Amino acid sequence: MLSTMQDSQLSIAQLLRYGSTFHADQEVVTWTESGARRRSYAEVGRRCAALAHALRTLGVTGDQRVATFMWNNAEHLEAYLAVPSMGAVVHPLNIRLFPDQLVHIANHAEDHVVIVDQSLLSLLVPQLPHLRSVKHLVITGPNVDDVDVPAGIEVHSYEDLLASSPTEFDWPEIDERAAAAMCYTSGTTGDPKGVAYSHRSIYLHSMTVCTTAGPALKQGDRALAVVPQFHVMAWGLPYAAFMTGASLIMPDRFLQPEPLAELIAAERPTFAAAVPTVWLGLHRHLQRHPQDVSHIDEVIVGGSAVPASLMHTFADDHGIGMLQLWGMTETSPLGSVARPPADAEGEERWRYRYTQGRFAPLVEARLIGPDGAVVPNDGESIGELEVRGPWVTGEYYGVDAPEKFHDGWLRTGDVGSISRDGFLTLTDRAKDVIKSGGEWISSVDLENAVMAHPAVIEAAVIGVPDPKWDERPLVAVVLDENADVSVATLHTFLTDRVAKWQLPENWAIVDDVPKTSVGKFDKKRLRSQFHDGDLTVTRI
Amino acid sequence: MLSTMQDSQLSIAQLLRYGSTFHADQEVVTWTESGARRRSYAEVGRRCAALAHALRTLGVTGDQRVATFMWNNAEHLEAYLAVPSMGAVVHPLNIRLFPDQLVHIANHAEDHVVIVDQSLLSLLVPQLPHLRSVKHLVITGPNVDDVDVPAGIEVHSYEDLLASSPTEFDWPEIDERAAAAMCYTSGTTGDPKGVAYSHRSIYLHSMTVCTTAGPALKQGDRALAVVPQFHVMAWGLPYAAFMTGASLIMPDRFLQPEPLAELIAAERPTFAAAVPTVWLGLHRHLQRHPQDVSHIDEVIVGGSAVPASLMHTFADDHGIGMLQLWGMTETSPLGSVARPPADAEGEERWRYRYTQGRFAPLVEARLIGPDGAVVPNDGESIGELEVRGPWVTGEYYGVDAPEKFHDGWLRTGDVGSISRDGFLTLTDRAKDVIKSGGEWISSVDLENAVMAHPAVIEAAVIGVPDPKWDERPLVAVVLDENADVSVATLHTFLTDRVAKWQLPENWAIVDDVPKTSVGKFDKKRLRSQFHDGDLTVTRI
Repeated sequence: MLSTMQDSQLSIAQLLRYGSTFHADQEVVTWTESGARRRSYAEVGRRCAALAHALRTLGVTGDQRVATFMWNNAEHLEAYLAVPSMGAVVHPLNIRLFPDQLVHIANHAEDHVVIVDQSLLSLLVPQLPHLRSVKHLVITGPNVDDVDVPAGIEVHSYEDLLASSPTEFDWPEIDERAAAAMCYTSGTTGDPKGVAYSHRSIYLHSMTVCTTAGPALKQGDRALAVVPQFHVMAWGLPYAAFMTGASLIMPDRFLQPEPLAELIAAERPTFAAAVPTVWLGLHRHLQRHPQDVSHIDEVIVGGSAVPASLMHTFADDHGIGMLQLWGMTETSPLGSVARPPADAEGEERWRYRYTQGRFAPLVEARLIGPDGAVVPNDGESIGELEVRGPWVTGEYYGVDAPEKFHDGWLRTGDVGSISRDGFLTLTDRAKDVIKSGGEWISSVDLENAVMAHPAVIEAAVIGVPDPKWDERPLVAVVLDENADVSVATLHTFLTDRVAKWQLPENWAIVDDVPKTSVGKFDKKRLRSQFHDGDLTVTRI
Repeated sequence: MLSTMQDSQLSIAQLLRYGSTFHADQEVVTWTESGARRRSYAEVGRRCAALAHALRTLGVTGDQRVATFMWNNAEHLEAYLAVPSMGAVVHPLNIRLFPDQLVHIANHAEDHVVIVDQSLLSLLVPQLPHLRSVKHLVITGPNVDDVDVPAGIEVHSYEDLLASSPTEFDWPEIDERAAAAMCYTSGTTGDPKGVAYSHRSIYLHSMTVCTTAGPALKQGDRALAVVPQFHVMAWGLPYAAFMTGASLIMPDRFLQPEPLAELIAAERPTFAAAVPTVWLGLHRHLQRHPQDVSHIDEVIVGGSAVPASLMHTFADDHGIGMLQLWGMTETSPLGSVARPPADAEGEERWRYRYTQGRFAPLVEARLIGPDGAVVPNDGESIGELEVRGPWVTGEYYGVDAPEKFHDGWLRTGDVGSISRDGFLTLTDRAKDVIKSGGEWISSVDLENAVMAHPAVIEAAVIGVPDPKWDERPLVAVVLDENADVSVATLHTFLTDRVAKWQLPENWAIVDDVPKTSVGKFDKKRLRSQFHDGDLTVTRI
């Protein structure tokens, strides 16, 4: 029996209509060298219509990709809204990619148009000769200078295009399962892979950002989006803000602590989103230059684990609650949000905040243990996290990657536990966990246990082949140069701290642990060093 | 280009799984003569599985209808969750219907099973001989006595059925557009008409109940559902509570102010939903028997317009914010919620609260004026409200009613204005508005203007045929018996108060205005009185 309900499609055009009319007076603020630029949502609505007309004029039809190479600003918001609403696919390019990755991604997505901020032209122009599908370069900013581009690419001024276009557009009806936007994974191994979000997935995700089970963004909030729009659609904040009638505060290229603090003082956000390093930088700045930021009620933090000390600092020094969230490009990104249960108090409340959070109602999650079976959500059993749901990807765009999926679930590559009440605690990456005799040993837990010894500067743990147990842990440890401790001492130190079968028998004292460009342990290189015989290993 | 997102279905089973695991410790409280009965959501989950097994045993297959004839209680919640999750359709019957309406509805829906509260048996049993499709009567309560039913109907004890059934069920995958639940309109004219909600519509509606744009129900709330589960699915509260992890407080049959106050004192709800008369009754009771109810943070009120005085009283005397909402059976029901904008202050804030509220993001609304064209959302232009969206009905179940729809929009029969920021103010019913020379005159506005005269006890306005203007207003007025005012005086009184073209020329002084069973003006009868020549009309 079919329901009698209307067969409405969830669509970005519907969201655009709603926000630009019923929340007409909300605004998107863009920071500039000379302060704030302001644009009401009513005006954004009119300019979106003009942008859609302009893109049609440039030949954008059907589901062609319109890329952006932009900071967070009003024009980027317009591209977010107008491009999907006209039926095309908006594709934010990560401006921080290596050139060859950028070229690969733009060619793979077959981007037809690139909208680029004038301030980013010098990064993009050298790559244009390699971009095979790009026919139009649309440059934002008030006065667009001549740009030297390869034959076959036309250059346009964004503002000129809009100025000559009508401010109403008859948005087409679009199947909610059609692609609306694309992002590529950062791709630590292999080529970056594309994920295409649908109108439906973005709409449902945006609703969740506005629910009490999620970040609970609300009408009248002033939401500071530091998380770049080229990182998983700025965590969905631009769409959610337009849906619920929150104003958006966009830092453009002014992402250093000093201008951010200035922007915050001028625009008094009530809500914000950024990765931990941004908050850390801001905190250090505020220590030297005190400023009341308590108008910020809550911030969402993701991208990497948030140090507990940072959360406490923000609560104690600035009166700001930090909500950790977990997600990935493949999950739109909101998978879980660490909002403590209403009845948790004191220390318990903090323990909930330290987790990666409770899964959103539409995100189903399970853990697959070492033997390939689902392990219980008891807060202790460890497994690889698998998720599914309407804003979780079921494949990659134009690439076959069966190893990333398992019976219709996305394999996240993250390892951890889920509590009985649905809170995720990550302990490791699946590729770093040590598979020992059918059990898993968390490399991160072992590292923390070793680093608790006062003589240890840092410690990285990898799994190394073992004829009996498949893998056993190896600890690469950097010791304080003044300390006089042996491997045996460290081993003994651990006996009280980890289960007996987890005690590492392989130790290597090293001068330093290899690190990635962002300062994380480079375990891949550590593994190569071991395999190449470059580590002096003591067995105990 | 299709997105790469998973093709997950929004489903009640998913919601049931989520709430009964990650919010396992939340509870549904049912009030009884001897205090509260409690059941955790984990237990509700197990009992839903058992109920589904039991219904299968009774032969419930496919999308068969399982009716309920129940108060708000834990068992009714189980039926709400289990029946749709197994693929069948839950159909709450209104226990207050006239017998012939009840019989019509149950036969029309082809209810196969009726789950009935023991306390309501005496109301249902006399109608059983007329119910053509019912094969099973399932009676809730601890000790089910023998019941005399017609041949062909089997009687079961709800608890016995559950006790003998497994507590896990392999919920089937269901198309999200399949029917999950049914309600019939109250049908003031003609037969009641059925609306079939889908898994999708219920899921999206529940999300909205948990968004900041809606009632913002949240984890840890204790939600008192006074609005009956047989009235538009209790405004979606049971599903939303299960989704977000709010506990439910169910009054069962204890709906009078005294036991309600007792229930409130014992269970300390933080949120509640009921029609205005319930709040009025509770307020009167609290005046005589003071009790702190300030733990109730917010209540949602709908079903009929909320008197401003009641809102102020609840704010001033009890510290409770009242959120008016507008909706109907055909809209699931949440259409709009009167949450004032964040920047509205003082008197302005109250003015927003007096409206029917701002439309939810997924409810599109427009006003059709007297000439059939869309009128602007300027807060002044008046038109008939039409809505569309994924939880708005597009037809009625098994009945053709083209007059209720207009180019895919639902004609609500309500007349009013929409402000620029999307707030609805209803002024009349479409059938009561006076169509005069291509313009509309609100009968309610005219009534209020006339009633402002001190000599007027009450006044009802209807449209009567006019050769030149199609219709003109007629005022039926009840005068204070001690007053000595003429129709001319009243007419003069109005000249400053309404536009000249709206001034009524037809007046009838009457002893009383005919009323419906719920005390509203019965304008249908007033119109008959006019047509039958039973009114003495003075023309001016």
